[in-house]
Amino acid sequence: MSDEEKLGGPSVVMIPEGDNLERLVCPDCGFINYENPKIVVGSVCSWQNKVLLCRRAIDPRRGYWTIPAGYLELNEMAEVGAMREALEEACATIDIEGLISVYTIPRISQVQLIYRATVCDGVFAAGEETLELQLFEWGDIPWTDLAFPSVKWALEHWKLIKDLECWSPFTNPSGEDGSYL
Amino acid sequence: MSDEEKLGGPSVVMIPEGDNLERLVCPDCGFINYENPKIVVGSVCSWQNKVLLCRRAIDPRRGYWTIPAGYLELNEMAEVGAMREALEEACATIDIEGLISVYTIPRISQVQLIYRATVCDGVFAAGEETLELQLFEWGDIPWTDLAFPSVKWALEHWKLIKDLECWSPFTNPSGEDGSYL
Repeated sequence: MSDEEKLGGPSVVMIPEGDNLERLVCPDCGFINYENPKIVVGSVCSWQNKVLLCRRAIDPRRGYWTIPAGYLELNEMAEVGAMREALEEACATIDIEGLISVYTIPRISQVQLIYRATVCDGVFAAGEETLELQLFEWGDIPWTDLAFPSVKWALEHWKLIKDLECWSPFTNPSGEDGSYL
Repeated sequence: MSDEEKLGGPSVVMIPEGDNLERLVCPDCGFINYENPKIVVGSVCSWQNKVLLCRRAIDPRRGYWTIPAGYLELNEMAEVGAMREALEEACATIDIEGLISVYTIPRISQVQLIYRATVCDGVFAAGEETLELQLFEWGDIPWTDLAFPSVKWALEHWKLIKDLECWSPFTNPSGEDGSYL
């Protein structure tokens, strides 16, 4: 079937029987599209005190720098998802050391679990979704070319705990909701 | 429409064009049902060193004891969701003090964010989904009547950090995936 022939799907907003919130329902087949926040797992990966950043090959924010991160898959452990994303985007095997932060981006209903990690043996290479990769000294991080506000948060929070054995995870910086400036 | 008349919805497993994983697609309307892990937010709520537990009025595990917890809603901050659940299930206003743990239950694709909290003024009452509530001394917790393995994990992890100012959040106990025994 082509898009022209079939543009169906859940399209009617209504409160289903026994529910208390509006959901999107398909008028053709009766399917109720329950939506939930999505989980992003990612990591600030370092090697010899430098931070690994990836320049995005895909939209949104193609050409801007980010950390390895992406959606957690069904049936996947959170840390395993963060390791998979580092492998996919940076061809890097990483050691997860702890949870830096739990950010919520309410506008797009994302919860982001960001881990502190090290790049095993310092080996990495650009994956399919990455234009180029680079290890940055703290002073050389391209702050004005970061892809998302939460990448900046993660780097700044990483800086605060990068040498600690134990810390409490951060949440959004006060008053910030992760929207673009 | 009744269930008898309309049993449609996404029912065909296939890999959509441009995707790399199998998804459930509706043969009637072409809708693709992208599924993601769900986020549960909850809290171990204490008052004067006792722990607040709720006896579930709903399935699954009706009649068993649990902590206030439930699904994070769209556009909701994680901590706000945990506070909402305590209000809904225990009519309790709580102060969130920190993140005890991030559990993953891969079989049912749940990520659970469990917070340490105190019950403001020690005031609570059973909500609609709760048969009864009780503040338990540690030695009186009904361990064999807890609703889910992760409730036991959360209580045991809470015990370890209940008096600490700073701690690293826990994950699943080694080798445990949160399935029933």
